[in-house]
Amino acid sequence: MFATCKTGLGLKQSIEQTSAYLESHHTHTTQVHNTTHPNTKQQKIHSIPPPRLLGRLPDCAIHQILLFLAMEGGDTTSNGGGEWLRPMDTEQLRECGHRMVDFVADYYKSIESFPVLSQPGYLKELLPDSAPRQPDTLDSLFNDIRQKIIPGVTHWQSPNYFAYYPSNSSTAGFLGEMLSAAFNIVGFSWITSPAATELEVIVLDWFAKMLQLPSQFLSNALGGGVIQGTASEAVLVALLAARDRALKKHGKQSLEKLVVYASDQTHSALQKACQIAGIFSENFRVVIADCDNNYAVSPEAVSEALSMDLSSGLIPFFICATVGTTSSSAVDPLPELGQIAKAHDMWFHIDAAYAGSACICPEYRHHLNGVEEADSFNMNAHKWFLTNFDCSLLWVKASQANSVVDFKDWQIPLGRRFRSLKLWMVLRLYGVENLQSYIRKHICLAKHFEQLLMSDSRFEVLSGKFVLRFAVGAPLTEEQHVDAAWKLLQNEASKVLGSM
Amino acid sequence: MFATCKTGLGLKQSIEQTSAYLESHHTHTTQVHNTTHPNTKQQKIHSIPPPRLLGRLPDCAIHQILLFLAMEGGDTTSNGGGEWLRPMDTEQLRECGHRMVDFVADYYKSIESFPVLSQPGYLKELLPDSAPRQPDTLDSLFNDIRQKIIPGVTHWQSPNYFAYYPSNSSTAGFLGEMLSAAFNIVGFSWITSPAATELEVIVLDWFAKMLQLPSQFLSNALGGGVIQGTASEAVLVALLAARDRALKKHGKQSLEKLVVYASDQTHSALQKACQIAGIFSENFRVVIADCDNNYAVSPEAVSEALSMDLSSGLIPFFICATVGTTSSSAVDPLPELGQIAKAHDMWFHIDAAYAGSACICPEYRHHLNGVEEADSFNMNAHKWFLTNFDCSLLWVKASQANSVVDFKDWQIPLGRRFRSLKLWMVLRLYGVENLQSYIRKHICLAKHFEQLLMSDSRFEVLSGKFVLRFAVGAPLTEEQHVDAAWKLLQNEASKVLGSM
Repeated sequence: MFATCKTGLGLKQSIEQTSAYLESHHTHTTQVHNTTHPNTKQQKIHSIPPPRLLGRLPDCAIHQILLFLAMEGGDTTSNGGGEWLRPMDTEQLRECGHRMVDFVADYYKSIESFPVLSQPGYLKELLPDSAPRQPDTLDSLFNDIRQKIIPGVTHWQSPNYFAYYPSNSSTAGFLGEMLSAAFNIVGFSWITSPAATELEVIVLDWFAKMLQLPSQFLSNALGGGVIQGTASEAVLVALLAARDRALKKHGKQSLEKLVVYASDQTHSALQKACQIAGIFSENFRVVIADCDNNYAVSPEAVSEALSMDLSSGLIPFFICATVGTTSSSAVDPLPELGQIAKAHDMWFHIDAAYAGSACICPEYRHHLNGVEEADSFNMNAHKWFLTNFDCSLLWVKASQANSVVDFKDWQIPLGRRFRSLKLWMVLRLYGVENLQSYIRKHICLAKHFEQLLMSDSRFEVLSGKFVLRFAVGAPLTEEQHVDAAWKLLQNEASKVLGSM
Repeated sequence: MFATCKTGLGLKQSIEQTSAYLESHHTHTTQVHNTTHPNTKQQKIHSIPPPRLLGRLPDCAIHQILLFLAMEGGDTTSNGGGEWLRPMDTEQLRECGHRMVDFVADYYKSIESFPVLSQPGYLKELLPDSAPRQPDTLDSLFNDIRQKIIPGVTHWQSPNYFAYYPSNSSTAGFLGEMLSAAFNIVGFSWITSPAATELEVIVLDWFAKMLQLPSQFLSNALGGGVIQGTASEAVLVALLAARDRALKKHGKQSLEKLVVYASDQTHSALQKACQIAGIFSENFRVVIADCDNNYAVSPEAVSEALSMDLSSGLIPFFICATVGTTSSSAVDPLPELGQIAKAHDMWFHIDAAYAGSACICPEYRHHLNGVEEADSFNMNAHKWFLTNFDCSLLWVKASQANSVVDFKDWQIPLGRRFRSLKLWMVLRLYGVENLQSYIRKHICLAKHFEQLLMSDSRFEVLSGKFVLRFAVGAPLTEEQHVDAAWKLLQNEASKVLGSM
């Protein structure tokens, strides 16, 4: 987004222009880049001056884009030369794998020069309308990725990415994805690959201890943890367990009476889960979270709604609290909501998808106080914990006491990837202390941004108004990126105020 | 399974013994393997004679396991030496990525020597009970993967794998997983990364054309395709759409009257979907598929059940047909079931998760005749189509006619990976003709197995009895693996018959 503003050129245009430029200057290809894998024989362009068309981009950025676009164009390895790729030829996999590693590393190297936000609706006209009868070369594929795919990618890994929420990649997470893709097991039950289930149980126990979750969430109690794809699935699984418990108690005809409670800051995943589970839409109770309370829901307001429902003959059965709402990182009052749930035999779920990661630091752990009363708790390691998407962690207190866990019974799908590998590798290769430092660094950067805001009298840090939402959490983000974003905001503010 | 029988030793034991052996012979390390990435400086053992303990393994297999276990033990690269891994350092990612590529290629190289079936319940005692405070090295991680994880992995990619159904990895699929992990975008809506949504639409159109699906399933009609995680999710999404259409028509209080029809050969995913969607368990109508009809469901039996339900005041709303059942690859009569569904305004879903891949060959396409009447259709590219798990393709005829597709509204979770990349890469790098040959080769191997069976008078090819289920479909499987499996079966048969 910021880079788009800076350049004033859409990436599609700039790529097209750059490509055209490169084609007419192809003879300038002179120098072999020495950091890439030697087998791949990549030709890199170092000697081309930046074309005028891209004059508003900083020189170094153009240089990087040129490098990335020009990479591998002159490759003449076996697959580049037309021999078709055999699906599981070990040495072809080795060679192509090395080339992809270099491609990915070069992408990360140049990521900062791409506009974060991509161009829309362009791809259909660039690709053929049916699958090729004959195989293409890896060269041709890499070219298409650079020229046709990347212009449409929103660069979530860019240090200039401050939208939505972070989606952290990392070297350890990436290696974990590679290994899990290589095994390509389908771990639906324990017997289909015991290591997958057993590692997941162990690593979820590790994580529960890092978060100081109550011991009932550990696998040696009746409870335990499981990796879901997303928080949506974690919340749905909890809701379904709660629904079926309630229907068992009140009779299966009572679905129409079941009521769910949450605040208007709760993630939309809960509403979707209710729709899937067949909860009547008029029984999804949305309690307004007051801005005076920093957008945390008020237990009194929940109690009040609940009393009215009880007197109407409805059956309150599920409360969802949030630790770190998507819009403003608000934290609901867990102990009070837990007490309400307990008093009415309701299922109490806590969604800490976004902010849960911070609670591995002792100084932020207090945000989880009250989790003792929860029936289930989820957080997303794939947001702000350096573990590639997807990796959403769910813990439940009560599970079936089988000697062997079959995780197919803990989730919506049957099949499941070996996702615990990447989480294990993140924990092993970074260690808890470095992960805590990582979290603290982003919080420092967010505070730095707050300081910048407060030092400009035209801006205020507010609640209860329409505000700029600025999410710090990309793995590559440093102070300079926050500063650049701030400068952009100031410039835009000057323009807006100037035109008023 | 077969390798276990051959060796007579569990892998856990053999790994322990091999490791002990290696430790006592570590000075034999003499030769550097020249196919691996030079930066990784891996020391490989070529000169060790096979230890007696493993005498029943073929020599070449022991050699391979020794090689794989010994790999990288002497590594002294920067990360091996103790420098901790920075999450997104480009050059560290490059170096570690190259090492992982070699690790994976070496794993595939030695995969045939591992027992397919792994050892149970061993991991908890091998790993610490909490996450490390300080980072470990990549060397130490690789060692643990070899010595602690791999013994518990069921080797779905082994050419000797004939269980469940295939879960195909391939070089193209693996590269796709790498790239999608590198972008690590979260493509829940079009704007979060337009290329992800647009490529998915295009590639699903390509695939629909390969399968000759009716034009209403293409994106330029009202319909279109979407990648789900698993067939379970595909079936659930179809069922939810059907449920909500029926509730809209008959009133939301009518959930208890909705009836689903399928055969007793239908995948358990449908029953799970019904449970999630709140369909009353007594309204899940399981029609017995007769062995005289090759386990295809009889349309007459479905009609009969349906008439009884109608006369009881129930509402039939969903029929699920299967093309290639899990237990015997049976194909339900699509045209007749489609007519029944049409006559009663029911949703008609076809699950071709397993056998759908074969229908890209003209000679097998007739199994899809009748798909014209379907409201939705799914097949799994991650089973028998060289596309790494997860990649389940779902097409629907009617979707919302938005100018932009937001796939979050077509699936259970919110977040989603860039899964179309790997499917696109499989189609691009292999081409339709090679993919057809790949399917045909497996079918030939299955026929070869049938010939082997028929030439031994002690075996019969039957239906209607308890049978051996033999699923050919692993990417590395060749005739020799089928022959070895057959030999094992014959030996076991001799033992069983000898003891009778």
